[in-house]
Amino acid sequence: MPIDLTPAPRILAFDVFGTVVDWHGSLCREIAALELPVDANAFALAWRDGYRPAMQRVRSGQLPWTRIDALHRMILDQILHRFGVDLDEAARRHLNLAWHRLHPWPDTVQALTRLKTRFTICTLSNGNLGLLTDMAKNAGLPWDCILSAEVFRAYKPDPATYLGVADVFDVAPAEVMLVAAHQDDLAAARDCGLQTAFIERPLEYGPSRSNDVSPNPANTLHAASLMELAAMLGC
Amino acid sequence: MPIDLTPAPRILAFDVFGTVVDWHGSLCREIAALELPVDANAFALAWRDGYRPAMQRVRSGQLPWTRIDALHRMILDQILHRFGVDLDEAARRHLNLAWHRLHPWPDTVQALTRLKTRFTICTLSNGNLGLLTDMAKNAGLPWDCILSAEVFRAYKPDPATYLGVADVFDVAPAEVMLVAAHQDDLAAARDCGLQTAFIERPLEYGPSRSNDVSPNPANTLHAASLMELAAMLGC
Repeated sequence: MPIDLTPAPRILAFDVFGTVVDWHGSLCREIAALELPVDANAFALAWRDGYRPAMQRVRSGQLPWTRIDALHRMILDQILHRFGVDLDEAARRHLNLAWHRLHPWPDTVQALTRLKTRFTICTLSNGNLGLLTDMAKNAGLPWDCILSAEVFRAYKPDPATYLGVADVFDVAPAEVMLVAAHQDDLAAARDCGLQTAFIERPLEYGPSRSNDVSPNPANTLHAASLMELAAMLGC
Repeated sequence: MPIDLTPAPRILAFDVFGTVVDWHGSLCREIAALELPVDANAFALAWRDGYRPAMQRVRSGQLPWTRIDALHRMILDQILHRFGVDLDEAARRHLNLAWHRLHPWPDTVQALTRLKTRFTICTLSNGNLGLLTDMAKNAGLPWDCILSAEVFRAYKPDPATYLGVADVFDVAPAEVMLVAAHQDDLAAARDCGLQTAFIERPLEYGPSRSNDVSPNPANTLHAASLMELAAMLGC
């Protein structure tokens, strides 16, 4: 039975890393395929753990505006050194583009296809436009529009990103619903007046690191999967 | 027989109004459906004729950054007055969004679908992101990514737009091909190092106004239609 929301959302904006695609599993497979002499799980987690501090250096003004591709590469160079791995430039470039090749969670493509029939579906990711475009093409993600921190020259959780989505589509903030697997992202969107849907991704960090997926009643919706969200929204 | 290009283009960036969609025919149908007491052909041409001067006011700094939706509305209000038509606010809003509902040329969807199999296909339009997203959804245009003057905060023919596409996808300018029905757009892209493909749209301005579609040898390719372009590019 669909849930009746007032106002009805018109735009669904999706967080991508962890919500739509399985970065941990995808990176582990890429690392294994390259036969890097590292623990793939530890390496993938270290790469992702470098992301927030790197982004914070941009947000604080310590770094000028820098795309995620370049931030991922800075982190990669650091952790290759830390893990004692020697890789040539071509291999580093190839590995860095693993983020362009992330695989969707099993429910993603079918759910987005259903949601697209009733809503405008877009990304709202800190990933850059080129990364998100390559990912969509590789993974078959049927976005109506790809929006990124790159468009707003601000990284989530900057209000300019959430309010930017409403502005692009000329709708009220409450007519936008952010869909994400991360409570901090959703909280920042809520502060801007957006509706919010939490998606459980208990394995976002792989089996070795637990991930709290308990509900926060402040969210508009809480769904175990994107398919459940589609059902809740009558798609 | 496909044409061998060096370097091979990786990104096809499309002008939209006139190249991908038939703004003249679409506007005439919208005006007729509203039973406005005007000559639909003259009204459509007047609306479009207001576009370059309005954009020039933004490019010159006379107006701050303004989206096409707002420019279209300013022009609409002027020409409704000039044509002596009284329309209420709701009807003006509806009519202004006719630009979000433009129909593709008959060859567009099939050709884009073919081109998408070998290239990343994106818009590069002065239309705003919301307009281009609505248009793609209505018309079934299978873009990999929607890029707009709005992303670069500059209107074509500003070099920031053409070079912006190469920058977004981290490729050399010569790996981007601009596809357009307008020689001035293509000339500006060429000046930035892009490859260019001219598409003949002899009826862009309807049957009452002639439109020169003769070849310019400076373009990389000249095609009678997007389907012919697809064949030239081996799709």
